[in-house]
Amino acid sequence: MPEVIAPATRAAREPRHGVNTPALFATINAVKETPALAKFRFRATNRWISGTYSESRLETFTGAGGEHNHQTEFRYGADHPAVLVGEDRGPTPIEFLLHGLAACITAGVGNIAAARGVTLTSVESHVEGDIDLQGILGLSDRVRNGYERIRISVTIDGDAPPEKLRQIVEQSRARSAVFDVLTNGVPVDVSVNTR
Amino acid sequence: MPEVIAPATRAAREPRHGVNTPALFATINAVKETPALAKFRFRATNRWISGTYSESRLETFTGAGGEHNHQTEFRYGADHPAVLVGEDRGPTPIEFLLHGLAACITAGVGNIAAARGVTLTSVESHVEGDIDLQGILGLSDRVRNGYERIRISVTIDGDAPPEKLRQIVEQSRARSAVFDVLTNGVPVDVSVNTR
Repeated sequence: MPEVIAPATRAAREPRHGVNTPALFATINAVKETPALAKFRFRATNRWISGTYSESRLETFTGAGGEHNHQTEFRYGADHPAVLVGEDRGPTPIEFLLHGLAACITAGVGNIAAARGVTLTSVESHVEGDIDLQGILGLSDRVRNGYERIRISVTIDGDAPPEKLRQIVEQSRARSAVFDVLTNGVPVDVSVNTR
Repeated sequence: MPEVIAPATRAAREPRHGVNTPALFATINAVKETPALAKFRFRATNRWISGTYSESRLETFTGAGGEHNHQTEFRYGADHPAVLVGEDRGPTPIEFLLHGLAACITAGVGNIAAARGVTLTSVESHVEGDIDLQGILGLSDRVRNGYERIRISVTIDGDAPPEKLRQIVEQSRARSAVFDVLTNGVPVDVSVNTR
């Protein structure tokens, strides 16, 4: 059992607040025995509609040795707001990074708490990202295009002392896929095709 | 007029494929004169529901010297899929990064094409992110938590030669807020409160 998750206490072996903890442990052990199962590929397909508005579909992904479909086809729009000459038919693309960050840390908190025998009653996060649009508007070469800083504040409650609850959030941060990508960056290859 | 957008040709001064080009130029000029207008702060509020499922609201943001509400309150769920012991009630948090990337580059393509006097007929993107879950499962310290690599393939069509269309995508990439954050990273501060 990896230390990320829990000592294998009796409490940790029971399902808790929506987490099927035994299945989680079984999955971790299966991946431990067959590391190739851990290779995943996620995908999105985006289509421009008009102006700054586009829509993405999140449907299929590869992982655990096979192809998978999400239960539902998830579709999301994104746009620029009126103050940036868009039509506000969706959030700005960069706001989705804030949602991804909060949701990733929260999902980890759910799993880790259950695995440590802690029943949560609430987890709420507020995320803020500061950006100076002089970058993307091409008005300054000293201003970066993206967020200058992101802050996330997590408020957690459950049947454990405050210090244990804090450690659960800290462990989730330390193992968050989105936190890693946002703080460390990732190589992105761009290719262009013309019809 | 910043070179990012266009030479101020006659064609560039007309609205085009949903982009209000004159308003876009006016906004850029206003920010050029008053750089403080370019300071924006985007926000998300996330609430854990159960298991690995949570929901975010994207409602308000600060920018252009004021507070703004999106026209609609945008709500998004995120979850882990069944193969990762979630209930698949939403995409995984890290898939939202792929949507954000594609939507950001596409919005820029819409603006830049209009400003350069090019009318687009279609823009489609496919994005893939490769991730080895041994990282987040705590099974290997040599495997990072997040994506190892992201690829985006953009297919664009419009009333311009292929080379000009390619340059529009390249300019959008060069000024994309999400591309910058994903490739270069950003400082993220995490704070925890217990009730």
